[in-house]
Amino acid sequence: MNTPDIFSIVKAAIKIAPYINDTPIITSSYITQITNASIFFKCENFQKTGSFKIRGATNAIMSLHDNQLVNGVATHSSGNHASALAKAASIKKCKAYIVMPKNSSKIKCEAVKYYGGDIIYCEPTLKSREETLKQVIENTGAIEIHPYNNYNIIAGQATAALEFIKNINHLNLIITPVGGGGLLSGTAIAIKQLSPNTKVIGAEPITVNDAFLSFYSGELHPPTNVNTIADGLRTSLGDLTFNIIRNKVDDIITVSEEAIIEAMKLIWTRMKIIIEPSAAVCLAILLEKKIEYKNMKIGIILSGGNVDIYNLPWSK
Amino acid sequence: MNTPDIFSIVKAAIKIAPYINDTPIITSSYITQITNASIFFKCENFQKTGSFKIRGATNAIMSLHDNQLVNGVATHSSGNHASALAKAASIKKCKAYIVMPKNSSKIKCEAVKYYGGDIIYCEPTLKSREETLKQVIENTGAIEIHPYNNYNIIAGQATAALEFIKNINHLNLIITPVGGGGLLSGTAIAIKQLSPNTKVIGAEPITVNDAFLSFYSGELHPPTNVNTIADGLRTSLGDLTFNIIRNKVDDIITVSEEAIIEAMKLIWTRMKIIIEPSAAVCLAILLEKKIEYKNMKIGIILSGGNVDIYNLPWSK
Repeated sequence: MNTPDIFSIVKAAIKIAPYINDTPIITSSYITQITNASIFFKCENFQKTGSFKIRGATNAIMSLHDNQLVNGVATHSSGNHASALAKAASIKKCKAYIVMPKNSSKIKCEAVKYYGGDIIYCEPTLKSREETLKQVIENTGAIEIHPYNNYNIIAGQATAALEFIKNINHLNLIITPVGGGGLLSGTAIAIKQLSPNTKVIGAEPITVNDAFLSFYSGELHPPTNVNTIADGLRTSLGDLTFNIIRNKVDDIITVSEEAIIEAMKLIWTRMKIIIEPSAAVCLAILLEKKIEYKNMKIGIILSGGNVDIYNLPWSK
Repeated sequence: MNTPDIFSIVKAAIKIAPYINDTPIITSSYITQITNASIFFKCENFQKTGSFKIRGATNAIMSLHDNQLVNGVATHSSGNHASALAKAASIKKCKAYIVMPKNSSKIKCEAVKYYGGDIIYCEPTLKSREETLKQVIENTGAIEIHPYNNYNIIAGQATAALEFIKNINHLNLIITPVGGGGLLSGTAIAIKQLSPNTKVIGAEPITVNDAFLSFYSGELHPPTNVNTIADGLRTSLGDLTFNIIRNKVDDIITVSEEAIIEAMKLIWTRMKIIIEPSAAVCLAILLEKKIEYKNMKIGIILSGGNVDIYNLPWSK
């Protein structure tokens, strides 16, 4: 498969339509007032399984032939891709083997089980995750569905941007979080083809700034540390996502942990919706005034709403 | 003014339309599944000022002549009516004097100030609240706007039910929280005229069951205690709301604190929206299986979303 283009994104949108929500796009008069900008929030926290990840996972599964699915699918993930893949696999009634670090949160594990996924626990290291996944694939014959370094995943995640600009025209900016880069790269492909005057920006926690470093150095940086409240953004880019991001994204901007928490609190208390820390990084850029945006029309993808309500960033 | 009827409710709806949100009505596939019922949630947590109270307050203000507003309006409230009245008064550019107990939460006080209200602090007793309000009215000539025992308030709160049944037909049940009874009595008037086959039920914390006792004894009970997590429901009925409730409401059902917290957590984690504990009592009835509702079509008014995120019921 080649790099996704608008045709593959539209095909993905048609394929996944019966299984996902066309999520609402909302505004907040308070946030409009304090930012002096028109900000539109695409609510992927209201998406099936609580994040945009179901888009890519469903497209990846629906793009495989039934005979490729006969031994199931497999991935390693401690986050939203885990439950998304389990749910997407259930559509095709195929097995989903999810390798999860044994210190994964109870809530995340329960979500995977709720959607019918088979959890295989491993040590909480990347090495153990990769080795365990390799073993699972050898034992079962399952097909690996990588969380982001996969063109079908990227085309699936891009459908959020497609819905966005179908409803809101002439955005000056669109901002998405960047972790592994599936959402950002897909968004960039869709936007640059359909709305070339809209700038595409990735938002990343400064403590895990590997995407920022890769973008500015032109070379794929390895993972830095994983010390951020935005647990969905602790991964680093893959070669496929990096190539698209380097060619199509206008900028990657980093933000402090404090600004992420502040943005999350603002969205919770003013908009009365639950988002996870990873979804707050985009508004955090604006709160920290890292770019000029006065009077602009800005789109933000609120990537997810899966948060442990017993362990909130401000209650620590 | 006579008891509100459908005509006064429609008039209220027209008067307040420019200043309020026609709030969304949403469903949750998970909650549908676990309850075996079609439950529709009317999201007054997304209402201006974060609760339905702005409906009544705006109708009360817009129903007064300009010369009645010249010295402003006044009330005592530590809750959602306080900021709602401040915001509604700001539409008419009149003063709003809000008597608040000096132990009111910082967040509630800040909301009143944000909307331009003048706070007068008093001791945290009903006696001090009433005496201070009386003094304020004597000093300023302001007109009192009671939080619920006022027909314009009741007609205003009823507009939520009007929007509800305009969008969702043939509900078997509609459930609202009951504190002072403004929302429940207004809902009962609207529903019994427009959809007489729909049962109207009030949900009340068992620890503050004065509405339940009044409803079943036929006599207005005084406040019981104020020991509930549902801080918006600590008030007791007034004579106006009681009369309507006794004649038009089908039942009042009480729920435990545990069920309220469970319902709140379910709505937060599954629907990804922020509601306050008072808004959770309706779903709590269903979780406790206090009524037969299998396969029914049920409307629930989620009354508000103003919650102190630093002090959540499950983090205590």
